[in-house]
Amino acid sequence: MYKLHYFPGNASAVPHMLLEESGVDYELCLVDRDINAQKSPEYMRINPMGRIPTLEDGTFAIFETAAIVLHLLERHPEGLMQPLAGTGERSKFYQWLFFLTNSLQEELMIWQYPDRLVGADAVSAAMVRQGAEARASTMLDVIEKHLSSNGLFFLGAKISAVDFYLLVLARWARPMSNPPRTRPAISKLLAEVSARPAVQRAYAAEGITDGIY
Amino acid sequence: MYKLHYFPGNASAVPHMLLEESGVDYELCLVDRDINAQKSPEYMRINPMGRIPTLEDGTFAIFETAAIVLHLLERHPEGLMQPLAGTGERSKFYQWLFFLTNSLQEELMIWQYPDRLVGADAVSAAMVRQGAEARASTMLDVIEKHLSSNGLFFLGAKISAVDFYLLVLARWARPMSNPPRTRPAISKLLAEVSARPAVQRAYAAEGITDGIY
Repeated sequence: MYKLHYFPGNASAVPHMLLEESGVDYELCLVDRDINAQKSPEYMRINPMGRIPTLEDGTFAIFETAAIVLHLLERHPEGLMQPLAGTGERSKFYQWLFFLTNSLQEELMIWQYPDRLVGADAVSAAMVRQGAEARASTMLDVIEKHLSSNGLFFLGAKISAVDFYLLVLARWARPMSNPPRTRPAISKLLAEVSARPAVQRAYAAEGITDGIY
Repeated sequence: MYKLHYFPGNASAVPHMLLEESGVDYELCLVDRDINAQKSPEYMRINPMGRIPTLEDGTFAIFETAAIVLHLLERHPEGLMQPLAGTGERSKFYQWLFFLTNSLQEELMIWQYPDRLVGADAVSAAMVRQGAEARASTMLDVIEKHLSSNGLFFLGAKISAVDFYLLVLARWARPMSNPPRTRPAISKLLAEVSARPAVQRAYAAEGITDGIY
């Protein structure tokens, strides 16, 4: 049985939603960030950077959210949360997956935790935060432009795992001055994804009942 | 025919090496960063963030380096630069690919361009740079530990696309106080990958003849 090491609302929510969508059995294991459990020797044995999430699948463990996503999709293709291998759509799926994880998510991490880069100096932190928000907004505008000319979801009419990823990041970005939901095409996608029973079960299990995006 | 939009030594070198390995026909198109060509309206039509690389494949264009890598691997599986789908090795391949692109590469970008985050203030820039180097070093230590207990390459005895990715990032990181090549297992991997004729052809075509790592 899968074991997903998670913390409420963290990037772990993406594989959590996909596990709910797939209907397979899995166990949720809280990594308690309040006591810095992600840096415990036990946890770092399966995740050497001490980050969340990790997925245990039988005898082996895998880290990096998007890699866990691809792992689950290969094992549960019946959910069809990604286009078929070898198609142009599949390559576009990869493109948006990497764009979300290493462009948008990275900027949102800088925006949320500027002190990790510049320490306690409030003036520098505010500047770093402002710059990250501006760059994240440009990325959201790129996504908005894509969605408004390509259909409801990243890949058009059919939902895929990247749409769930955007929902999770959109929740992080809610306090931005120009949050994702203010863009019409993104807002439609978020409404659609967040209405899915699997998504609602996943967030409920994580104790998240506030505004989702 | 493929068209790879590149700049010498940029992340574009990873798909460039894989194209050389695969033996297929392709055209190299320089995106001249010296005149900011990556932000020209023509280029941004195929790469809306104005980043390098982009791969054109017939009628469609794809961005994000690692997505281009997966696109090429799906179309040219004969080179076997990734493990077979559905295997645990394939999931580990994804894990390292995401780790390199959104953890190590992102830290190296911050380290190379701290001014993008904190502007012209030299004191803040130096602090950001120092922090990014420390985090990148921790990541390199994780890779070193993995390689020293798992074999010559990321996936053991068999080379895969992630090994080429590490070589390209290692070249960027050469000026670090504790660069990748100082770690014995990483150094062995870099020696092996950089000795491949395809890698040497790719760097030569980009005009790169200085120390490769």
